[in-house]
Order: sequence, then C-alpha cells, then structure tokens
Amino acid sequence: MRTVKEANERKNEILDVAKDLFMKQGYNQTNTNEIVKAVGIARGTLYYHFKSKEEIMDAIIVRQGDELVRRAENIADDKMQSVFERIFNIIMSLKIEEQEQELVAHIHRPENALMHQRIEKMIVEKITPILTEVILEGIEEGVFKTAYPYECVEMILIYANTAFDEEDSDPSSRDLRKKVNGFIYNLERLLGCKSGSLDFIRKTFEV
Amino acid sequence: MRTVKEANERKNEILDVAKDLFMKQGYNQTNTNEIVKAVGIARGTLYYHFKSKEEIMDAIIVRQGDELVRRAENIADDKMQSVFERIFNIIMSLKIEEQEQELVAHIHRPENALMHQRIEKMIVEKITPILTEVILEGIEEGVFKTAYPYECVEMILIYANTAFDEEDSDPSSRDLRKKVNGFIYNLERLLGCKSGSLDFIRKTFEV
Repeated sequence: MRTVKEANERKNEILDVAKDLFMKQGYNQTNTNEIVKAVGIARGTLYYHFKSKEEIMDAIIVRQGDELVRRAENIADDKMQSVFERIFNIIMSLKIEEQEQELVAHIHRPENALMHQRIEKMIVEKITPILTEVILEGIEEGVFKTAYPYECVEMILIYANTAFDEEDSDPSSRDLRKKVNGFIYNLERLLGCKSGSLDFIRKTFEV
Repeated sequence: MRTVKEANERKNEILDVAKDLFMKQGYNQTNTNEIVKAVGIARGTLYYHFKSKEEIMDAIIVRQGDELVRRAENIADDKMQSVFERIFNIIMSLKIEEQEQELVAHIHRPENALMHQRIEKMIVEKITPILTEVILEGIEEGVFKTAYPYECVEMILIYANTAFDEEDSDPSSRDLRKKVNGFIYNLERLLGCKSGSLDFIRKTFEV
C-alpha cells in the first residue's frame, strides 16, 4: 500500500509542477525536459506516469475537474435544499473564484485554446448528469416537465459556457442584461416550468 | 480604381497561399517568412496588408465566413420558399462539403484549437441575425412564438455547433439519434411551435 501512496504522491507532484510551468510560461512553450528538471526526477520516472506532455495536461484538467465535480455532487445530494436552491448553488459552485482569475486569464490566451476547449468539454460532460438528476427530482415534484432532461441540461450548459464566457462581459451593459433575460426565458421553456420560477438565476450573473 | 483592384488581388493571393501553407503544415508551424517566400513578394508588401500571422489567419477566416454568410443570406431572402424550407436550406448550406473535409480535419487538430474556436464564434455571430430574420417572419405568420428570437437562435446555433461537431459522430448510433430527437424537441419548445413541425430537421443529420 505504501508504494501505491507514494506513486500517487509523485504523480500529483508532477502535476503540481507541470501546472505551475504551464501557467507561468504557457503550454506550448513548456517541454517535458523542463518538467523533469523542475520536479527533480529521472526522465524514466516521468514516462512511467505520463507518456507525453499532452497526457500531463489532460491529467491536470481531469484533477481540477474532479474537484469541481465533487463540489457539484455534494450540492446535488443535499436533499435538505429545494430543487431550485440546489440548481442555484451548483451554478454558483461552477463560478470562478477570485484567486483563480490567473487561471481564467491563462486559458483565454490564444496559445491555450486547446486547454480551454478541453476544460469546457469536460465541464459539460461531468456536470450534465449531475444537474440532470436534480431536474429529474423536479419533474417528480411537478415543477419541471420535459421528455429530454439530459439533452435539455446539455444545451443549457454548452450555451452558458460559451455565451457567458466573455472575459470582457460588463455586468452593467444593456446587452448582457438582455442576454440574461433571454437565457432565463429560454430555460423556463426548455424545462417546462412556470414563468418566473427561474428568475433567481439572474442573481448568479450579478445583473 | 485599378490600384485598388490590384491591392485586393494581392491580398487575396496572400490569403490563398497562407491558407494553403496553414492547411499543409499547421498554423503554429508556419511563419511569415515562408508566406513571403511562397507568394514571391517583398516582406514590406506583406506587412502593408497584414501586421502579423494572426492577422492573416483572421482574414482567411473572415473571407471563408463571408462566403458562408452570403449563401445563408441569399436563402433567407428567397421569399418564394416557406420559412421552414429556408431554415432547412440554411442549415444545409452550413454543412461541410466533401472537398472541405481536409479543412475540417485540420481545424480539429490540437494545434489549431484557436482557429477552430474563432471559426465557431464567427459562424454564430454572423448566422444568428440571418436566421433571426427568418424566425421573425415565422412569428408574423404565427408559426413561431417567442419573446427572445435572437437569444433563441443564438442558443440553438452554439449548441448545434458544439454538440454535433464531433468528428467521430456515427449517424447509425443510438446516442446520436437520441441527441437529435432531444434537439428537435428542444427547438420546438424554444421557438414555441407545434410539436412535429420541425421534424424535417432530422434529415439534415442523416439519422
């Protein structure tokens, strides 16, 4: 058991260092030699864990995503909260925290378009089933009505991820307010719920 | 007037050659020196038209997009076709043609993630207003009903662009069929039209 723990620790150490290098100098500008040097391990040790730089990047994203998914799952499972409260809190848990702004700026840099694309894909793939479970509960309670809850959530997440992912989006702009109003209107139609019942989502946009 | 025409021809020639190089060896692997050499012009001539490699790529995408937009606009303006026929034909006009498969494979390569991201953004920005016009006609005719036609079309295009942009999507798979069924169901809800009235969209997916 001890060796398994050590292997995992070593793996996480490589990911920590690689992530740090990617953040500082960009993914394209970092090679595995630098990672090997910065961790202070033999080349063979790196290759025991990861076949390529791309595999390292994938593992970093998977690890970050796992943390995000764990948080969303905990909220989804908390039956003390209403379906609406849980939807609100899951959305809020996906929002980027202040200390992670560096990460956001980073994935928006042209050279990190691939990382950006993968993070978005991963979020949609992992969060869709979690939110779908909450929607299914809402259908049982009679607050939602749709024959395609999964496809519905998938559409909402893909749209929100792209449409509200502008770094320059200004919460005071009229355009953003109209966009948010249209989004909530469309959500209520997609989920087949009473007009106004998803109005609380406005708060997650700070508009 | 003659010099303007010549400048435009030169510009298009640069774009043709640069596009060809980007397609063959990848955007990241191409530098402006190679473009200058391949066109057979002076470095200053290139810089008269484009400040950077990125500007060249942007111009290629804008030019390809303009062609796509022109086709969609022509269909949207053809009042001889019903609103439904025009929606069908606009979707079909956005589909990639056989001879462009090389381009599709190219933008899906990891190193071209940025180009891919920009093409998708451009398509959504340019096609949304065109399709919105058709939807507005449909609202006047009473076949559609939504208070947010623009946001509705935007959501549909962003979703379709991402969800049906898998290179590996197999038209015979059960998953894809369910995805398409859910998509059409969601479209009918978003556009507030009769159930079944958008069933023709199924044909554009060949499922």
